[in-house]
Amino acid sequence: MAQKPSIPKGTRDFGPTQMVGRNFIFNTIRTVFQKFGFEPLETPSIENLSVLTGKYGDEGDNLIFKILNSGDFLSKTNSGDYDRGYKEMLPRISKKGLRYDLTVPFARYVVMNQTQLTFPFKRYQIQPVWRADRPQRGRYQEFYQCDADVVGTDSLICEAEIVGMMTEVLDKLSIRGYTIKLNNRKILAGIAEVIGENGKEGELCVAIDKLDKIGKVKVEEELTERGFSNQAISELQPIFEIEGSAKHKLAQLRDWLISSPTGTKGVDELEEMFQIMETAGIKSDKVDLDITLARGLSYYTGAIFEVKVADSAIGSISGGGRYDDLTGVFGLKNVSGVGFSFGVDRIYDVMEEQNLFEENKQYTTKLLFTNFDEESQNYCLPLLKKLREAGVNAEIYPHKNKLAKQMAYANNKNIPYVILAGSDEISNQKLNLKDMISGEQKLLSFEEVLEIVSEP
Amino acid sequence: MAQKPSIPKGTRDFGPTQMVGRNFIFNTIRTVFQKFGFEPLETPSIENLSVLTGKYGDEGDNLIFKILNSGDFLSKTNSGDYDRGYKEMLPRISKKGLRYDLTVPFARYVVMNQTQLTFPFKRYQIQPVWRADRPQRGRYQEFYQCDADVVGTDSLICEAEIVGMMTEVLDKLSIRGYTIKLNNRKILAGIAEVIGENGKEGELCVAIDKLDKIGKVKVEEELTERGFSNQAISELQPIFEIEGSAKHKLAQLRDWLISSPTGTKGVDELEEMFQIMETAGIKSDKVDLDITLARGLSYYTGAIFEVKVADSAIGSISGGGRYDDLTGVFGLKNVSGVGFSFGVDRIYDVMEEQNLFEENKQYTTKLLFTNFDEESQNYCLPLLKKLREAGVNAEIYPHKNKLAKQMAYANNKNIPYVILAGSDEISNQKLNLKDMISGEQKLLSFEEVLEIVSEP
Repeated sequence: MAQKPSIPKGTRDFGPTQMVGRNFIFNTIRTVFQKFGFEPLETPSIENLSVLTGKYGDEGDNLIFKILNSGDFLSKTNSGDYDRGYKEMLPRISKKGLRYDLTVPFARYVVMNQTQLTFPFKRYQIQPVWRADRPQRGRYQEFYQCDADVVGTDSLICEAEIVGMMTEVLDKLSIRGYTIKLNNRKILAGIAEVIGENGKEGELCVAIDKLDKIGKVKVEEELTERGFSNQAISELQPIFEIEGSAKHKLAQLRDWLISSPTGTKGVDELEEMFQIMETAGIKSDKVDLDITLARGLSYYTGAIFEVKVADSAIGSISGGGRYDDLTGVFGLKNVSGVGFSFGVDRIYDVMEEQNLFEENKQYTTKLLFTNFDEESQNYCLPLLKKLREAGVNAEIYPHKNKLAKQMAYANNKNIPYVILAGSDEISNQKLNLKDMISGEQKLLSFEEVLEIVSEP
Repeated sequence: MAQKPSIPKGTRDFGPTQMVGRNFIFNTIRTVFQKFGFEPLETPSIENLSVLTGKYGDEGDNLIFKILNSGDFLSKTNSGDYDRGYKEMLPRISKKGLRYDLTVPFARYVVMNQTQLTFPFKRYQIQPVWRADRPQRGRYQEFYQCDADVVGTDSLICEAEIVGMMTEVLDKLSIRGYTIKLNNRKILAGIAEVIGENGKEGELCVAIDKLDKIGKVKVEEELTERGFSNQAISELQPIFEIEGSAKHKLAQLRDWLISSPTGTKGVDELEEMFQIMETAGIKSDKVDLDITLARGLSYYTGAIFEVKVADSAIGSISGGGRYDDLTGVFGLKNVSGVGFSFGVDRIYDVMEEQNLFEENKQYTTKLLFTNFDEESQNYCLPLLKKLREAGVNAEIYPHKNKLAKQMAYANNKNIPYVILAGSDEISNQKLNLKDMISGEQKLLSFEEVLEIVSEP
């Protein structure tokens, strides 16, 4: 007997209902990225391990899925290699791995194509990535990332437009209660400087990053463990206390950080960014200047972003920041830029939490012709063609069947309109249109049906 | 020094220009699939090897990319396994592989979800697949497949609509000189029967399938080698001679195959299919009823399709057929259906051959505001917002730069319109619009610009 098939833990099938929701999210993101002048890029799922390893830390290297060499993969090994264990064997039997994120392939692409590319280069990339993480709720081995980056310019217009893109995408998806948290790494560097712990902004970031999860007291304990003096920790207090509007916070920061050129540069950048947003008509009412926002990744050097949703169990749904060195690891210096990413799986989960799919049912087919008999089929087929020519997604139930079955088919596919055309309708050259949401049924001409189902 | 990065042989980066062309193809296919009532499905890239192996023949099994188990992948092996070689080691160090096609994952999905699915189930799936084939021109280790299938109905409306979808996609892509070759496996079975080689339609198909490549004489030689009698081969002659319109061919076939119930059924099916196409207004002028069309895959049992382009070095760009048993290998019997697939890489190549991208330049950004200075930037930013609100993809060059650099940026991105707004334009509240194709430049109001760039 054939074995019952299954899929690997941590992977998922996306059936039609989920796909329709996911495509709505992907299309919204893609449309907004393009509206802001970003161009698409796709890189191979399979990269050389020489490109991938050493970029994500030791833990990351372990989470890269490795692909066995084709054919006799043992041919370049000997029993001594075998005896020395898997770490010795690995580079001999595997040369390639699966994409772990979109940033390293993007950096590789920029390096390989540096002479052909036009800078500033604005690219977006929407592709799956793979991580051999232990599967658990909300953590998958295969998931999509949606990145947009501009490299080759320091203009703060880019930062302002990131706020614009985040706002436009999340508003178009009707997501409620989101906040775009904004900070600048130079502010954190300036704080480290004025509290007398110059150069330790990395450790400050790591500790401060946990504020949401562990609270102020534990953050201070961690700073002590990391060698921050009591004096420094006491001078850090304004970080927890600065409040008010962005303008007001920036004024307080300017005073606090006056002795730090880096910190002052951070304040300048944020002020200019708010200025550009105002001129460019980019709404800032969802932006929360949060000087405790640190973000873990060490390569950020300027603005940092993170989007959270109020009253949601789901973590940040978008984030990013400015970096000074995208490609140094591949030998190309001074490629700076700014980028951000949407977490599609988390956005989907938030939309489910907020009943957004339920409130606004998604469908692919707008109208179904039921199929009574050959006469009805022959009556409907030419009309089906006319509907499709008018751009309406429509189909005919492909064979005679009990009407209940055909209605169930429409219901399960979330098709909002169904046509019933038996001999009565045919002799009157009419159609019976059933609205599957209201249940209402109307005898109409084809033109009337077309008008109703053509509405978006 | 950092190593110069590279990508594995047989894989590709798709930069913006290629992606814009590819997305045009993908979107066209997706739109047409949905217009005909097909719903999207996505399955994981990683499948259990138990699902993949044994489905593609021995050669296929060798071409499946296998993924190394995580962590100490040697822990379930011993030196005896190692000594017995890679075939012994493989199942102990790898449990998963990369998707090889979209059909087996679809079958697995149907089996796993059989109780929840509504039949007939119409799904499309557009995803990459991976094959560890030796890379060569036009053959890649990673490439996209675009499949659409209907399972759970024998209605020939499905076959007729496949012709409709093929025609609509290829016409929308403006591809010239394509032919949809059509046949029915029952015709080939009937031919085997009437020439006295009952049950050998499989071997007949394999030989006939090569007619295009090796010619009639070699096909006959191969049939002899496969044990077809001289008598049978001489009775086969009508297959090379039947000509004329589809109607005429079907009439001749009906006479020839009169003694074969299966062959007659094949003729009936094709006749009904042409009848449905006529009623449904599906154009059949690109359809060529070609009784020598066989298609290699053994699981087809009814209609078979293949699309070729005249005067092109590129093979078939689309194909498919009806099958009786999608899921038997996973223990679920009697799931019949019909499906087909577009080859996106080949379609892209044909469109390049026919200069279709050159004739109809694709772009993502419609308009670029150049950036002279802060005054010009502040003048343009609010107008940029208005354009985007009107749905126009637009961007501003993010910092001051030589005008030549900014124009080169527009040129390289294929941006069709550029705005120049210096102090003269600003004082007159006008904009200088440059048409990058004609080179023409006009002083216009914002409203006039909006009207021009809003045209599709």
